[in-house]
Amino acid sequence: MTSAHLTFDQTGEKIAERVVKMRSSAVRDLFAAASRPDVISLSGGMPDVSLLPQSAIKKAVRAVCEDERAVALQYGSTDGRVQTKQVFCDLMRDIGVRTKPENVLITSGAQEALDLLSKAFINPGDIILAEGPTYLGALQAFSAYEPDIHCIPFDDEGMRMDLLEEELARIGKGNPRLKFLYTIPNFQNPGGVTMSSARRKRLLELAAEYDFMVLEDDPYGRLRYDGGHMVPLKALSDDVIYLGTISKVFAPGLRTGWIVAPKHVLSKVNLVKQGTDLCGSSFDQVVVEHYFTDTPWQKTLQKFVSTYHERRDAMLAALDEYFPAEASWTRPDGGFFVWVTLPEYFDTASMLSEALEAGVTYVPGDSFFPDGKTGKNSMRINFSFAPPEKLNEAIKRLAKVINERLELYRVFLDAGAIKVD
Amino acid sequence: MTSAHLTFDQTGEKIAERVVKMRSSAVRDLFAAASRPDVISLSGGMPDVSLLPQSAIKKAVRAVCEDERAVALQYGSTDGRVQTKQVFCDLMRDIGVRTKPENVLITSGAQEALDLLSKAFINPGDIILAEGPTYLGALQAFSAYEPDIHCIPFDDEGMRMDLLEEELARIGKGNPRLKFLYTIPNFQNPGGVTMSSARRKRLLELAAEYDFMVLEDDPYGRLRYDGGHMVPLKALSDDVIYLGTISKVFAPGLRTGWIVAPKHVLSKVNLVKQGTDLCGSSFDQVVVEHYFTDTPWQKTLQKFVSTYHERRDAMLAALDEYFPAEASWTRPDGGFFVWVTLPEYFDTASMLSEALEAGVTYVPGDSFFPDGKTGKNSMRINFSFAPPEKLNEAIKRLAKVINERLELYRVFLDAGAIKVD
Repeated sequence: MTSAHLTFDQTGEKIAERVVKMRSSAVRDLFAAASRPDVISLSGGMPDVSLLPQSAIKKAVRAVCEDERAVALQYGSTDGRVQTKQVFCDLMRDIGVRTKPENVLITSGAQEALDLLSKAFINPGDIILAEGPTYLGALQAFSAYEPDIHCIPFDDEGMRMDLLEEELARIGKGNPRLKFLYTIPNFQNPGGVTMSSARRKRLLELAAEYDFMVLEDDPYGRLRYDGGHMVPLKALSDDVIYLGTISKVFAPGLRTGWIVAPKHVLSKVNLVKQGTDLCGSSFDQVVVEHYFTDTPWQKTLQKFVSTYHERRDAMLAALDEYFPAEASWTRPDGGFFVWVTLPEYFDTASMLSEALEAGVTYVPGDSFFPDGKTGKNSMRINFSFAPPEKLNEAIKRLAKVINERLELYRVFLDAGAIKVD
Repeated sequence: MTSAHLTFDQTGEKIAERVVKMRSSAVRDLFAAASRPDVISLSGGMPDVSLLPQSAIKKAVRAVCEDERAVALQYGSTDGRVQTKQVFCDLMRDIGVRTKPENVLITSGAQEALDLLSKAFINPGDIILAEGPTYLGALQAFSAYEPDIHCIPFDDEGMRMDLLEEELARIGKGNPRLKFLYTIPNFQNPGGVTMSSARRKRLLELAAEYDFMVLEDDPYGRLRYDGGHMVPLKALSDDVIYLGTISKVFAPGLRTGWIVAPKHVLSKVNLVKQGTDLCGSSFDQVVVEHYFTDTPWQKTLQKFVSTYHERRDAMLAALDEYFPAEASWTRPDGGFFVWVTLPEYFDTASMLSEALEAGVTYVPGDSFFPDGKTGKNSMRINFSFAPPEKLNEAIKRLAKVINERLELYRVFLDAGAIKVD
């Protein structure tokens, strides 16, 4: 065979247009670097699965070996197992949403939900609205279908509705290109901020007025450390498309998420899912079902919440102690992340190698914007995975890197080589 | 909220172009109907997982509860767990392909591999070649990216290379729209035919000459009941993109497949997989790894082979006994399916309701062609799932339905109301 070189040379030409502009996830690329044992990673978004009791895993797994074996090992229906859907209905009821299995579709994590919804609804050039910064996995999912993503900034009360209205006025009423708005209302990733009740209501009014769908992504909703429960958008309007996942309340390794949506939305998602992966893992669905049925999962969830609460406090205390006055950051009531903003002349992407050398990693802010340019002076730091003393040490190391840069920048600033608007 | 009706009315308009022409899988739609207990289904493509010994499942599952718990419950890398990749390298070595974990990427079943490769390489209007009829899940995966699928007929030695050459001459050398050829060389789905050695070699020569990639989908390769092992295309050329799955040698419920391909292909697949589902199920990968490491899986595979062998023989015997002279069918050396061709005036889609009434189901042939028109006088029947006596009864019922139609058609033929070319 002589085809080796020919094909090798030509694969670049064969690549689809949609892939040409795709960026590899900075987080993923960092995983390799961050595996050095002396480095404390603040860049991940991982739950601490070591908090899960072994006995609960054993109980949850029992059914796949015993009475539900035939189901767990076989193909399932594309939309998922009805018993597992019922478990998710129960989880939804806890947070104030009444729904039925026929309005639930099970996905391979919430990431697949983002892909399937994008596949079902986005034509190249369509308009998608989202917080900016927003979850980079959502940006990756959307971008495969080549939309125009418009970002709306947030403040401490979540997405700014005044700026959303301005953007909608520019887009215009009844614009057929406007498809949906994507939001993480609780403890946003990467911002850590939570959308206020008033803004939730206003968002839904605007959705009706300007005719766009609302995708509510809620991976962290149950991980609240301060304040009271906020009513989900889905509880305020049946039209909302709600994305849930067990990744942060049980285990991401089981890749199980769900969509709650009107049937006419799910029928399209179901159609595209057939060609995407036929069906999800029956095995994982049976395990998930039994975890939430046979084990004291609420108690385990409380352990997650109290552990992360302590870690968030440790991180905020360390930030207060070590970070310079020039830095500002969000103070999340829950979730996994703090969003740090440095003076605008900072470039956190270029600073990352210095941080890595100092033994700490974070995700540079520009990863969370679709243009890859905005947010260069910001960063996302995670507090869910490392224990308090490690978080303290990590923030201390990071502060040192920032302060060294600050000193350098001050020299340039004094010399007039950097201009501040 | 008053948005309910507004959004309801408008979702149809919001649907993406790529979905408008999508057809729901006839097989999936049939699942509901076929759940009537008196109906014998020949329409599925399911392995008989009841043949898996409970002790093996228990052994395979042990690691996810014990020493590998932290890994099994956590996010994994996008391309999959290296230990599981090594297991697939060992499986590949058994069939004559030497490869390394860095050339393997783990997918959520082979279906996801089809989606990811399509996402990475197909622009709307690109040309994809495939056997016709071919696997309907592949047609669904491809069609989401709006290619022009050209089908090449097969005979008893697989895809006809003379017809492929004619088609390639029409497409032209160096045509940038020509991306890849998709083939199931062993016990093709739905055809049951196997590509001869001579044709395998010729296909790879044509791939080099006309510069297209070859996707070798091999779900059934290890389920051979007659004849000797055929060398995979991947063993003949490193450029071939090989798709494997555990669905037919272990359990489809674990949704684990793999791609073996040159690194430059995998890097693109990896990039699109990040946005599609982040990573596969670590849990399932650990279970799969331990199934192929800690259990006597070859012995279980032999049980699959001997059971399916017996069922294939039962089906072929029943076809010989009950089917009319006007029908012809393939005689597969392995796999799951027989392809039946009836006189050209038959319409197996419209006949399906009569078959269902008679207590048997099959998949109408037009499901396996991208135009949804070709193949109307053919059908796919499955022999892997039902025991011999049920297969015999199902074929008897189906023959009765066909014979009744034949009698009706003969009346029309005699009256000149149906013309035969």
